[in-house]
Amino acid sequence: MNKFLSDLAASISPYVPGEQPKGRQFIKLNTNENPYPPSPILADVLRETNIDSFRLYPPPECDDLRDAIAQYYGVTDKNVYVANGSDELLAWCYPAFFVGKKPILINDITYSFYKVYAALFGVKTEIIPLTETFDIPIAEYGRENGGIIIANPNAPTGRILYTDQLEFIIKSNPDQVVLIDEAYIDFGGKSAIDLTRRYKNVLVVQTFSKSRSLAGLRCGFAIGSVELMDGLARIKNSINSYTMDSINLKLAKAAIKDTEYFHKTVNVVMNTRERVSGDLKHLGFNFGESFSNFLFVTHPKIKAADLYQKLYDSGILVRHFNQPRIDNYLRITVGTDEQMDILIKRLKTWL
Amino acid sequence: MNKFLSDLAASISPYVPGEQPKGRQFIKLNTNENPYPPSPILADVLRETNIDSFRLYPPPECDDLRDAIAQYYGVTDKNVYVANGSDELLAWCYPAFFVGKKPILINDITYSFYKVYAALFGVKTEIIPLTETFDIPIAEYGRENGGIIIANPNAPTGRILYTDQLEFIIKSNPDQVVLIDEAYIDFGGKSAIDLTRRYKNVLVVQTFSKSRSLAGLRCGFAIGSVELMDGLARIKNSINSYTMDSINLKLAKAAIKDTEYFHKTVNVVMNTRERVSGDLKHLGFNFGESFSNFLFVTHPKIKAADLYQKLYDSGILVRHFNQPRIDNYLRITVGTDEQMDILIKRLKTWL
Repeated sequence: MNKFLSDLAASISPYVPGEQPKGRQFIKLNTNENPYPPSPILADVLRETNIDSFRLYPPPECDDLRDAIAQYYGVTDKNVYVANGSDELLAWCYPAFFVGKKPILINDITYSFYKVYAALFGVKTEIIPLTETFDIPIAEYGRENGGIIIANPNAPTGRILYTDQLEFIIKSNPDQVVLIDEAYIDFGGKSAIDLTRRYKNVLVVQTFSKSRSLAGLRCGFAIGSVELMDGLARIKNSINSYTMDSINLKLAKAAIKDTEYFHKTVNVVMNTRERVSGDLKHLGFNFGESFSNFLFVTHPKIKAADLYQKLYDSGILVRHFNQPRIDNYLRITVGTDEQMDILIKRLKTWL
Repeated sequence: MNKFLSDLAASISPYVPGEQPKGRQFIKLNTNENPYPPSPILADVLRETNIDSFRLYPPPECDDLRDAIAQYYGVTDKNVYVANGSDELLAWCYPAFFVGKKPILINDITYSFYKVYAALFGVKTEIIPLTETFDIPIAEYGRENGGIIIANPNAPTGRILYTDQLEFIIKSNPDQVVLIDEAYIDFGGKSAIDLTRRYKNVLVVQTFSKSRSLAGLRCGFAIGSVELMDGLARIKNSINSYTMDSINLKLAKAAIKDTEYFHKTVNVVMNTRERVSGDLKHLGFNFGESFSNFLFVTHPKIKAADLYQKLYDSGILVRHFNQPRIDNYLRITVGTDEQMDILIKRLKTWL
């Protein structure tokens, strides 16, 4: 019993991120990190950074980075917000748009942080079950709600909604914020950023952690109407005036400008995914097409929990979620070709 | 009217940080930044940083940095928490310790962010007026409360409570968290970290932004009992698993280890403060002794708002708070000797 905790703090169950192993070397396929390093241009930026500038606060509105992101996506900087990882942006959305309203709609198999935010900020959720094939039943999003969150592609399933399906949901809910978490969109999906130009209620959130190989840097961004940016700014400026540090701002700006490197690494990951998908199917695994940098697989002959442990013991870390409907699935990040060859080789000896 | 905002978001008044001027060059004495660069060792750390490591998430519990801070202050790493600036730690304290309890006690002239957090998290505040000399009336902190926040030294006044005075408040409130914000403690005050060893209800928060010249890096830390660390962890892990990036963690660790440089720059700032205090007194300014890297001054012959404008027009940026009791005061950051000489010279021509 900790007498200092608020009832709220005592009652919540924080998010548990995938293991970052210390000591032992693993083939790390558990947190959807990119197996390739970020753009080599970042090394130049780092070398040119003058530490004397650190004595000053960073620009609170992160103007240069917002401008670079806006240019890349063909929107204005007034439609862009940035934060210390997309998780921070997602968190801000709850007090900005969802508290005190009707329950928000999220589905039953998705990024588990959405429910954690809801508990912290006292937002009610209504859970929409995915279909048998783990797809989002868009007709279910017509019911009364206080907001909608859709991960697209969804995680950990890797399944996607197409633009017309998203637009159907967005048009059905003109007064509610439809938050589209596109953490994995660059691995084969089509972003809903285009829809933010036509619909004021769409907020697209993306991250530099996956497709831009910058999980260690902490940078996420949101694109949407000025009304939605206003909401994010109100919350951010009520928590922390400067959530992105001076180096982070510079490195992220350089990363978004190196489009050639970005496309190259993303394509390599997608090619590996397709090849490994074939190998896994061959070994008897079942799974739907993935539009992300991971595969969400199940096998009729071996339990996921057992396979997780066998892989762990042999030095390969994947993710197993001990929750209803998916407890017999593993989420496997697409690593380098070499890493995936080792994975397949191991699996072959067991199956 | 922004129909997407929650009532909460529409009602709050976010914190407004001191201006970070773009374009025009100012002598910048408005946000209590350190006039000296951070430890030169940081340049080496930056040079040795391999950008390949950025593709991986940072260690979520920031173990190495916590360990370095613990060593410096002679506590264990279980008694240390770190965050993206001390503001982030302060924000976490509200849902961790204060929500749903009796009003927290804060004083009327202090860091204005405390009230912003309270509004965001729905925490009630009871305002304790400072004395005529802007000192904290410790006897007033015996009343019923849900927690206490004291900035020590206080900002923008620069006034301090001594350890026995703090201990009196801490002992009077054994079941409440007493949060001591020591953003400016290194400029001549004595930290309450010693008290955290004896009292489980004391939480000391400090920052790298001022005495360690790292405002641009975003690093703050908290020291207190494991019970209090548990509260911070629960909230942090319900918002953002990784709020400090890989470079930040490395640079902050190097900064805390360079004690020699730290003491040297802090002493220079304090010496400048003492010299400038004499000059300002000579010019007729009134103010109490400052234990921080700023002076909070008023002049019988010229209104603070007018003086702010005159200084602004002449290229010197200071801070003026347009609020009751202190609207005739200016908060002037202690800059380099050269900067302060220019300030004094200007003031002399006007007074």
